[in-house]
Amino acid sequence: MKIQNIENDLLLKALKQEKTERYPIWLMRQAGRFLVEYRKVRETAGSFKGLLENPNKAAEVTLQPVSILEVDAAIIFSDILVVPESMNCNYIMEEKKGPYFPETIRNNEDLKKLQLPDLYKSNLRYTLEAIEITKEKLQNKIPLIGFCGAPWTIFAYCTEGSGSKTFSVAKRILYQDPEFAHQFLDLITDASIIYLKGQIEKGVNVIQIFDSWAGILSKEDFEIWSLPYIQKICDSIHEVPKIVFAKGANFSLNKINRINCDAIGLDWNVPIEFSKTQINKTTQGNLDPCLLYADRNYLNKKVNEFLDSLPTNHIVNLGHGLYPDTPRENVIELVKLVKNYIKK
Amino acid sequence: MKIQNIENDLLLKALKQEKTERYPIWLMRQAGRFLVEYRKVRETAGSFKGLLENPNKAAEVTLQPVSILEVDAAIIFSDILVVPESMNCNYIMEEKKGPYFPETIRNNEDLKKLQLPDLYKSNLRYTLEAIEITKEKLQNKIPLIGFCGAPWTIFAYCTEGSGSKTFSVAKRILYQDPEFAHQFLDLITDASIIYLKGQIEKGVNVIQIFDSWAGILSKEDFEIWSLPYIQKICDSIHEVPKIVFAKGANFSLNKINRINCDAIGLDWNVPIEFSKTQINKTTQGNLDPCLLYADRNYLNKKVNEFLDSLPTNHIVNLGHGLYPDTPRENVIELVKLVKNYIKK
Repeated sequence: MKIQNIENDLLLKALKQEKTERYPIWLMRQAGRFLVEYRKVRETAGSFKGLLENPNKAAEVTLQPVSILEVDAAIIFSDILVVPESMNCNYIMEEKKGPYFPETIRNNEDLKKLQLPDLYKSNLRYTLEAIEITKEKLQNKIPLIGFCGAPWTIFAYCTEGSGSKTFSVAKRILYQDPEFAHQFLDLITDASIIYLKGQIEKGVNVIQIFDSWAGILSKEDFEIWSLPYIQKICDSIHEVPKIVFAKGANFSLNKINRINCDAIGLDWNVPIEFSKTQINKTTQGNLDPCLLYADRNYLNKKVNEFLDSLPTNHIVNLGHGLYPDTPRENVIELVKLVKNYIKK
Repeated sequence: MKIQNIENDLLLKALKQEKTERYPIWLMRQAGRFLVEYRKVRETAGSFKGLLENPNKAAEVTLQPVSILEVDAAIIFSDILVVPESMNCNYIMEEKKGPYFPETIRNNEDLKKLQLPDLYKSNLRYTLEAIEITKEKLQNKIPLIGFCGAPWTIFAYCTEGSGSKTFSVAKRILYQDPEFAHQFLDLITDASIIYLKGQIEKGVNVIQIFDSWAGILSKEDFEIWSLPYIQKICDSIHEVPKIVFAKGANFSLNKINRINCDAIGLDWNVPIEFSKTQINKTTQGNLDPCLLYADRNYLNKKVNEFLDSLPTNHIVNLGHGLYPDTPRENVIELVKLVKNYIKK
């Protein structure tokens, strides 16, 4: 592993299952719309992709929650869909609607259009440059997290062509053209490894793999179509600790526990007690993002109950990204509550 | 319980945990878009709501899968949102987009606009008449299932105003105005009971409660905001057996098992083996609807493996409604496979 002296090493210690005096905390989508400061920068960038492709502004929004919330880690502002874009599968981010792919990838013929990304010629260079700038500004005060989407989630978007409640097009392909599906998943996996290596080269201290659509697969299908590709990525990355968050794959937690990763993300549907019977690694997440809508008293009570229930090694986070309308003062309060809590 | 001699009583026997020679089968959304016959009638009705509010046509599409698929039960063609509409919370069904509520119900002031439904003056009369026609035509050959949405799911739609990935508006209200939330849920519960009693009066032999959005609540919140209201409905219905399907509430299955219902629906995320450790009632569902995209050999293999894994009392069904693009011949094949399977 790469050695960097990070002042606040709570997250890194938790990932190594070392004892920490308190639980580290960061929040998915901490650099996001719930912050007015973010919305201002986003506006000057013109669009979501404009922000993504402006390394200075991407670094700026990455750092906002570090000073505003005082979290224990930063996560680079980017999007999981930069990887398919770097492979020549482009997308449009439609306001309030989400991503849309004008040209889907649904068969071997479509696959011919794609290629492995060139880190410094493709769009990936923007995020890599943003990492460089962010690392410079962070001055090793806290760790920086890099990330990518899990191959299944990227596959789901590129085949379906947009978000979907059922992703039935994506799943249909698994059953009707399994050979193509495995080839495409392999290609996404290789591209993701190239991208993560690039991020590590630029200085990220931890990586997280987001399998946002794991939950639309049955347990059996998750273990065929998603987990092996996540495993391949984890087996290729030795330089930094790895967090795997397969949202909704709650009946495969024991299988995820067996792959070569350092921590496992939990959504808010899985009871923490159940996760303890399935996982002996560090866990992360599990708080319902809607809890942040509650009043101060209820929040205080629930967060302390939650902290009481945690295993020794846990990284406090939500079970999903922060919602855009989350009251800012409650997010600040959550971080304070976690910092003030004394581990038993 | 109401006594009616139903020729094919497999479903009713399974619900009473009596021994059956084979597993009964019906399919959620069996009267739906995957059938060209349905699409034709739908077209003549002009719109989804036009079909809903035309008792003859609604009865006609209810009966289509009975002759085409030869399933063991019919389910009345209707929509869970007829209940809020009958209470004066109207919705528009937007093509390809789903339901939209021009006026949401978000506080006590909004609640004043609502009332308990009059079965024979409100829109509910259309479905009640459709049940009458369907019962007449079925001639007690197979049972007819009536249904309603769970209060939480109806609450989620009426507060949010449309479908949503997160239902964060609906959940926000639970935390910020719990008193209003409980009042509204109570009102929906009472309206649902009135509606179900009306359906039973017209002859449905079984009722199912659909909690489509149970899965967006944490286990704890499901047990506060959804389960008690489902329980209240079940405690009020003594005339016919009751099936509860709370999609995604997989870590509360043991709690659902304790309420006064006869069977519990399973989505496709929960492994059947896990459900056996949580439930001692009859179960229903669990097949991934996407399995119906597979080729004949794979389908055959998977369905037989699935049937081998079932407990003694199970009603074969999917873990979700049939998708519109499901190949018709595979649905017919599924029914045949289940009928030809000899229970061990």
